[in-house]
Amino acid sequence: MAVYCPIPPAIHPSAAAVEAASMVWLAGYHYFGDDARRHTLLATKSAEFAARVSPHAITERLQIASDWDYWGFAFDDQTDGGLFATDAAAFTTYAYRLVRLLEIRGPRLLDPDPLTSAVIDISARFASCVSPAQHRRWVQAHRAWLFGVAAQVSARDLDLDLDEYLTIRLNNGGGEVVTVTCELVGGYSVPADDYDSPVVQALTEMSRVLGCLDNDLLSYAKTVVLQEKNQQNIIGIIAKQDHCSVHTAVTKAICLRDRIMCRFLELSTQSRRLDADTGRYIQDLGHVVRGNIDWALTAPRYAAQEQMQASAFSIVDTPADCSRHSPGIPSIDWWWNI
Amino acid sequence: MAVYCPIPPAIHPSAAAVEAASMVWLAGYHYFGDDARRHTLLATKSAEFAARVSPHAITERLQIASDWDYWGFAFDDQTDGGLFATDAAAFTTYAYRLVRLLEIRGPRLLDPDPLTSAVIDISARFASCVSPAQHRRWVQAHRAWLFGVAAQVSARDLDLDLDEYLTIRLNNGGGEVVTVTCELVGGYSVPADDYDSPVVQALTEMSRVLGCLDNDLLSYAKTVVLQEKNQQNIIGIIAKQDHCSVHTAVTKAICLRDRIMCRFLELSTQSRRLDADTGRYIQDLGHVVRGNIDWALTAPRYAAQEQMQASAFSIVDTPADCSRHSPGIPSIDWWWNI
Repeated sequence: MAVYCPIPPAIHPSAAAVEAASMVWLAGYHYFGDDARRHTLLATKSAEFAARVSPHAITERLQIASDWDYWGFAFDDQTDGGLFATDAAAFTTYAYRLVRLLEIRGPRLLDPDPLTSAVIDISARFASCVSPAQHRRWVQAHRAWLFGVAAQVSARDLDLDLDEYLTIRLNNGGGEVVTVTCELVGGYSVPADDYDSPVVQALTEMSRVLGCLDNDLLSYAKTVVLQEKNQQNIIGIIAKQDHCSVHTAVTKAICLRDRIMCRFLELSTQSRRLDADTGRYIQDLGHVVRGNIDWALTAPRYAAQEQMQASAFSIVDTPADCSRHSPGIPSIDWWWNI
Repeated sequence: MAVYCPIPPAIHPSAAAVEAASMVWLAGYHYFGDDARRHTLLATKSAEFAARVSPHAITERLQIASDWDYWGFAFDDQTDGGLFATDAAAFTTYAYRLVRLLEIRGPRLLDPDPLTSAVIDISARFASCVSPAQHRRWVQAHRAWLFGVAAQVSARDLDLDLDEYLTIRLNNGGGEVVTVTCELVGGYSVPADDYDSPVVQALTEMSRVLGCLDNDLLSYAKTVVLQEKNQQNIIGIIAKQDHCSVHTAVTKAICLRDRIMCRFLELSTQSRRLDADTGRYIQDLGHVVRGNIDWALTAPRYAAQEQMQASAFSIVDTPADCSRHSPGIPSIDWWWNI
């Protein structure tokens, strides 16, 4: 399995120090459980993820992003199983309140739930060093993410087609929190009308979907290597919708993914005339795509057996599909039509 | 029952023409049902609502707001009953997709559901005349609103306390779409860091909650006049939480509402030094509060028997409670602490 990604790898030089400091921060919350959870959280290599996604970040702010990444995995672990994974109403009640707590300004609130307290702490730390508009984007990104997870839980018994699946996948991976955070930790400021312009929104959405599809492909590679039961992901969705073999579905998924990559690169190049900070943001979106792959290839979360993983998944120089027209998927076709 | 509101009434001079044009627009969607729905939609007096909330709007844009208000009531009527009112997963699946359709740029999409097609039309019309950042705010307001309705549906079997109820009420009435629309139809532009500043966010949230609490009080007045079964609203929540009589709960609800009104006025006055367009926005938030009451007092949706309604509910010059400290409700206390 190979994906096209001509963006060079990069990593922030303080990754190790940031990891150590995140562990101290997590200890303050008892690793959201007991000390045995320390190993699980460490294994997410969240500090490395943050450092690859934002190689040029202000170190103090990268720390906040790294803390959030560990928090995000702890949140996933709590919500992926149990009641929250199957009961849309229970998840929505929990998640909706969480967004409100991030939105509230002023003195930091205390909450009996350590997971909630921790994210309120992160929110307050970002609020103290970024602009009101940037903090608001960060909060809105949580709303989009958690509404996306609510949609995923709500759709668990539905047969989703590719369009419906991608509509949910645009948000349920928390990708918007990651892309919004680029600017916050980078210390630059994208003008509002640039940030919300169709071109920049399309690039932002593409980087999120590329990240999710790469995670789907990597997860699938792992299920094959470990002969695990297949989980719901792009490959299963395509195989079902197109009544094709899994082998064909893998090829189709990679073609779609590479086609999005080509459009991402094309639109990035066309956007060079924009504001300098907007340019930095677009460059950071590229780091999100590349950094996510480099991180996932070694993170124990995906790579149960590292060597086999590396042989099962690689980065190549040529796209499997470089068609320049829209793929006929209503929820994303607009990326090709601006 | 009387509430404190020293903001003078106002109405846009084109209310009648806007109503007529909205009816033509609705006819194009067969009134989201059959022609018998025409009367129901007309009775919402949505054009009057839009004209009272935005008395100084650009007329062509007020038309879009008026169309949306009719659409909003049609949406409420569709989702207030049936599956969507009780099944959080079904509602979330529907609403999540709707937000995505608003977010997509480029050529207008067609949808077999007239309610969906109509709001895509509104989104495209706003996108063609406002800035990208303003359109994005409008879309985000829909996400906040619909996640709020999802939270309401999810919590229907829970005993909410006042804090939880207000957290949901902040969003489930669609108030943020109304407040965001002020700027879009007003033709001015609030700078991003003003818009997202704690002061302006607090004022925006207060105007939304004032609108919802006034609607709760008015709905309650109607249930008393018509001897209807009581619905879930602020009065029932307070009576249950404080183990008090309905009579006492009404008094407490009005005290809380007037206290928010006093804080709204105080913070509005303190904000006069802000940017001129920010000042216009804050003035429009006042029109939202006052316009909503004036509209509701005569709209058949609330006033089943107009005269009795008017005698059961009035506007007074003195607040029932003008305490200047926070009321001890975690989700809103921050309005007093900035």
